[in-house]
Amino acid sequence: MRFAKGHGTGNDFVVLPDFDGELDLTPELARALCDRHFGIGADGVLRVVRSDAVAGDADGQAAEWFMDYYNADGSLAEMCGNGIRVFVRYLIEEGLAAGPAVAVATRAGLRTVRAEADGQFTVDMGPVAVLGEGAAEAGGQLLVGLAISVGNPHLACVVDQPVEAVDLSCPRVLGSAGLADGVNVEVVRVVGEREITMRVHERGSGLTLSCGTGAVAAAVAAAWSAGERPGEWLARPWAVQVPGGRLAVALGATASLLSGPAEIVARGRIEDGWLARQRDPAEVGSG
Amino acid sequence: MRFAKGHGTGNDFVVLPDFDGELDLTPELARALCDRHFGIGADGVLRVVRSDAVAGDADGQAAEWFMDYYNADGSLAEMCGNGIRVFVRYLIEEGLAAGPAVAVATRAGLRTVRAEADGQFTVDMGPVAVLGEGAAEAGGQLLVGLAISVGNPHLACVVDQPVEAVDLSCPRVLGSAGLADGVNVEVVRVVGEREITMRVHERGSGLTLSCGTGAVAAAVAAAWSAGERPGEWLARPWAVQVPGGRLAVALGATASLLSGPAEIVARGRIEDGWLARQRDPAEVGSG
Repeated sequence: MRFAKGHGTGNDFVVLPDFDGELDLTPELARALCDRHFGIGADGVLRVVRSDAVAGDADGQAAEWFMDYYNADGSLAEMCGNGIRVFVRYLIEEGLAAGPAVAVATRAGLRTVRAEADGQFTVDMGPVAVLGEGAAEAGGQLLVGLAISVGNPHLACVVDQPVEAVDLSCPRVLGSAGLADGVNVEVVRVVGEREITMRVHERGSGLTLSCGTGAVAAAVAAAWSAGERPGEWLARPWAVQVPGGRLAVALGATASLLSGPAEIVARGRIEDGWLARQRDPAEVGSG
Repeated sequence: MRFAKGHGTGNDFVVLPDFDGELDLTPELARALCDRHFGIGADGVLRVVRSDAVAGDADGQAAEWFMDYYNADGSLAEMCGNGIRVFVRYLIEEGLAAGPAVAVATRAGLRTVRAEADGQFTVDMGPVAVLGEGAAEAGGQLLVGLAISVGNPHLACVVDQPVEAVDLSCPRVLGSAGLADGVNVEVVRVVGEREITMRVHERGSGLTLSCGTGAVAAAVAAAWSAGERPGEWLARPWAVQVPGGRLAVALGATASLLSGPAEIVARGRIEDGWLARQRDPAEVGSG
């Protein structure tokens, strides 16, 4: 089984080339690959498969390649602004797509990624919606912010202190704030002209090095705090410093664009029979 | 740059073949390789290099291969009972050593590893010394145990409760107990006939999935609690269940033997220029 390991601002992935959909990528296999001690280790798995070779998920999407994306816990995932940059870099480097613009089918619908001349990759993240104001409690501190949907729900809170100073280990959203169950919480600080720093607590994952949709939500909150409103966003991009690196977000009336790096760290082969030799989970922690 | 990733009971390593010592393995490179999001990810790096090609470290050791071992923080390490099993499995699989017994030069001196017929690997861990009784406080609980040297210092405490029930996140050793600064603390429970479970807090690393010298110390504490004394250990091995799997320890008058699995998960190549493209650490977490 061939693989590559890559990351976008520290959000890392095992890339599995499986062009004709012959691999039985079970939740168990995804979990084992993502295990950082017993497997390769990653936040998720990106299976590279032709849209024609998957049933249902890529229907009606005019893209040769489907990003079959699994979380580290083996569950299916829809879209990831960091993962899709790695996915497209891999396609281009392997000669599977020509670029600079590459259409990718995802469970969240068709996305287009552009390879920039400076080595960055720009992703169309789709439209954003401001749902209203909201609040959260974090480490005894009240955070007031904006409830935002970037496909998934966010509460992005502009603060007037270093973002590291907020205890974001276990934020608790107060009231519903127009948000469905489970929400990503960002703290955002404006540190310069259209320049922000942010930290993010991702639902299900806790504090992470980077979150693509979170970077978009952070830019929306910063723009809102500067007096801009949906439909009237200024086109000039926001530089967004996340713990794992630097992203840029340009807000638009119908779509937001996320730019950032994508790295392939290594390529190789997983040992034959490795999965069968995996530890029995029942053994772990027993006794 | 070629690499392999392997583990012994969840203690995982990047293996770097560098037979003639041409690689400039700086602390920065070791750290970058071990970074679990931006690199390959591991607890340490095992460079495979001929003893002849290293100056000093392998002097006077009658072994063709030297295990050049680095911790994830880039510091040099001496010996690792889990790492050396992975190292020898790699040597044998690559045809670099014949087996079943393979001599390996290490910073702690020459060690011999035997590939067993059942796929396990047995390591001569050298002599152990019981230094005296000692105690620690862990999560408000008093732990009484034995101070033991297995090359490095341990306080192994036999308890009469499930080992998971002890809060071993931040144990504090009480008094010196004949131990130098920094000590590994084990909780050990006898669960059957010469069968124990253990958890370990490693100095500098916290709770880990496995610790080879810790497994030896745990077996010593269990044997002591059964009335055996140094120099009069019973030869019959102890089965030691660690969070990452199963080990076996046979105590002897002049040496202790550690047996356990070693897995190679994957082999591959690191991308050219990857290190130069690594994030600037100064960027991370700023703002």
